[in-house]
Amino acid sequence: MELSKAGLTHAAIVDAGVAMAQETGLESLTIGTVAERVGLSKSGVFSRVGSREELQVAVLSEYARRITERALLPALRAPRGLPRLRTMWSSWLDWVRDEKLGSSCLFISGAVEYDDRPGPVRDAVFAGLAEWRRQFARAVRQSIDEGHLRPETDPEQIAFELFSIILGAHNDIRLFHDARAFTRARAAFDRLLADIAVSG
Amino acid sequence: MELSKAGLTHAAIVDAGVAMAQETGLESLTIGTVAERVGLSKSGVFSRVGSREELQVAVLSEYARRITERALLPALRAPRGLPRLRTMWSSWLDWVRDEKLGSSCLFISGAVEYDDRPGPVRDAVFAGLAEWRRQFARAVRQSIDEGHLRPETDPEQIAFELFSIILGAHNDIRLFHDARAFTRARAAFDRLLADIAVSG
Repeated sequence: MELSKAGLTHAAIVDAGVAMAQETGLESLTIGTVAERVGLSKSGVFSRVGSREELQVAVLSEYARRITERALLPALRAPRGLPRLRTMWSSWLDWVRDEKLGSSCLFISGAVEYDDRPGPVRDAVFAGLAEWRRQFARAVRQSIDEGHLRPETDPEQIAFELFSIILGAHNDIRLFHDARAFTRARAAFDRLLADIAVSG
Repeated sequence: MELSKAGLTHAAIVDAGVAMAQETGLESLTIGTVAERVGLSKSGVFSRVGSREELQVAVLSEYARRITERALLPALRAPRGLPRLRTMWSSWLDWVRDEKLGSSCLFISGAVEYDDRPGPVRDAVFAGLAEWRRQFARAVRQSIDEGHLRPETDPEQIAFELFSIILGAHNDIRLFHDARAFTRARAAFDRLLADIAVSG
């Protein structure tokens, strides 16, 4: 796919916005700070991405695209059922881990930054996290169908617990800088799976 | 305890700061906005609490005092072992639930707001959450000593998992406005406890 010059500029603005949001939070993103970073005038940025809110939404949308491409799609190629559920969860944990230190998952940090501020940014954060929850619940449902997990398993409940473990790991890495977070997250995941797996 | 007029003013400033931080985040707290809320001049607030950062730390310290008084101390009166661990965890979940809608737990939201910004505010958030983790780990250790939990149980691991469930519930209430969060959090807690409890 060849991008026009205008398309390239738009992509460069959003790319800079993603990097900045990861460093200092979605809330710190303004037309002015992004303009400075990419070497454009404020009106140049505005004419391409629109308002500050539209910039924030564009940044979240690009960030979601990257997670989908790098974490979700590869996981969906794993065999249906438990292998796919395991890969999907590991991919998200790896995503949280691989982010360079000092940067956060924009959806996890955005949830806390925007949960009490109705508007398109909160809606985009909500949509992104809800999508991951749906993907987890679906993978659990398929694992039940495949006979890998017990039939009485509640997919929404397990999706909640899988997500909670990711939030715990995110906190322990970002705030506590505690590398044991991954071992602990994996141990929690394995225990949960052992509880609901069909034995034998 | 009788408070001097100066003490009362200081308490009123910090109280207003706690309320504002719960509504719009620690980051939104400035000497100016708090001054307006309590009807003092900016210099009047500054002379009593110091810099903006000192105000934020004072707000976190008062918030921690309230959690300790209303959630932690009552839990510590429960019988040592599993009853105390259950009460302690429920108290924290209730604390997250009882906060009025649109307000967050300052430590949970503060963790995301300040995890990448070294300084006294981050240190205060770190200290507050680390203290809860220590209390959980201690209650788990005592439950092992009392013969309520299996001897091979890892207290730090369980403290991590208990905390993760609270984070999950906080997210589902604040962002998703999903009242099922509490039932799910309790189900996750019960399953975890069932895994590590000494049966019979």
